[in-house]
Amino acid sequence: MSELLYEGKAKKMFSTDDPNVLRVEYKNDATAFNGKKKAVFQGKGRLNNAICTKIFHVLQENNLPTHFIDKISETEQLVKAVSIVPIEVVIRNVVAGSLAKRFGLDEGVSLGRTIIEFYYKSDELGDPMINDDHALALKIATEEDLAEIRRQALKVNDVLQSLFSEAGILLVDFKLEFGKLKSNGALVLADEISPDSCRLWDKETHEKLDKDVFRRNIADLPETYEKLLSRLEAVK
Amino acid sequence: MSELLYEGKAKKMFSTDDPNVLRVEYKNDATAFNGKKKAVFQGKGRLNNAICTKIFHVLQENNLPTHFIDKISETEQLVKAVSIVPIEVVIRNVVAGSLAKRFGLDEGVSLGRTIIEFYYKSDELGDPMINDDHALALKIATEEDLAEIRRQALKVNDVLQSLFSEAGILLVDFKLEFGKLKSNGALVLADEISPDSCRLWDKETHEKLDKDVFRRNIADLPETYEKLLSRLEAVK
Repeated sequence: MSELLYEGKAKKMFSTDDPNVLRVEYKNDATAFNGKKKAVFQGKGRLNNAICTKIFHVLQENNLPTHFIDKISETEQLVKAVSIVPIEVVIRNVVAGSLAKRFGLDEGVSLGRTIIEFYYKSDELGDPMINDDHALALKIATEEDLAEIRRQALKVNDVLQSLFSEAGILLVDFKLEFGKLKSNGALVLADEISPDSCRLWDKETHEKLDKDVFRRNIADLPETYEKLLSRLEAVK
Repeated sequence: MSELLYEGKAKKMFSTDDPNVLRVEYKNDATAFNGKKKAVFQGKGRLNNAICTKIFHVLQENNLPTHFIDKISETEQLVKAVSIVPIEVVIRNVVAGSLAKRFGLDEGVSLGRTIIEFYYKSDELGDPMINDDHALALKIATEEDLAEIRRQALKVNDVLQSLFSEAGILLVDFKLEFGKLKSNGALVLADEISPDSCRLWDKETHEKLDKDVFRRNIADLPETYEKLLSRLEAVK
């Protein structure tokens, strides 16, 4: 028995016989600018599933708690059921995207330190940026949740910067979501980590290897994701 | 010898013979919506100077370090010269204004806790909201500055909530700026605190006693500020 629980822009989530386990199916849809730009790319679901699986394996080898269980088919994963903390956590190592616009900075400038931003996940409010006081006053998260999210986010950033660096890639910025396991309430990394949610540039040429190729009409998305996957698979 | 150093929307700053002391002159101009709405109100400069002086006297009695020296005429003050930290510090006790809009909340709802927001003072960037990581990465302030700003802001909030409460007024939210004294680098409260930079409501009726009467065309500005001043002067 398997029921569709949720359909997002790039994934579907299904129940399984185990209430603590969900099945994720990666779709071929790509969207940008809050869904205003849309396309379907043959192979995207397979590529994101493979890239995300590689990344979560590396995170697990580094003892980071995640919702990931295993890849079960070309486009599917099993994950642990969580209740999502409604905060999009953005980690930035290099100036790009909305940060460049907001502060009048040039894209590509290395930040002297990692910037973590919290956005309140709310489509109707347009995901507004929040600080800790907002999260606490709106009861989105507790002080302990925020400290643990920051701690894990920085560790994920360290592990992924190393992984991508070995593949000759600069981890510019990326988005994480966290959730609490249905089984025991532990805070773990949830959602996906893929070129849909990261900015990844070739270290030398700054060639983009992420969804910006689609957002900005720079290159073919499946070719780009395929290139990223083979560079990641060549690591170790 | 007195030179005009700066002319803002509501004040002029002049040098004095002492390089560590400036003269502030309160103007009769009122502006709103980043200067898009403008008017001149006879008496506004005198009223803001009197209200601000009363507030800074109470802060000083409570041992809060400020740039304020003394009121020297109906529309003028002497203040200590500071180098301003380019952060607008907004302290919120009750939902109103941009917070209501940003989170779809009703104005007037009491927040369970005080919210402090930081905005990067930059007219050309439109004063974007920032978090601590932005302030540190952009070298706007140090970690020690931010901690000290938060500490002083919360103490100012406590003192002013008491003061206004005795006058039958609810301190909904307000904006502060901080600076480092030219003389010794100490971080002190600077700029003005006036109904131009606070939301103040009658405790019982929620009648507005601040610049929102001008922003929203609710009542006569000088009459409103006069009412506020006499209620403050009646305290102790």
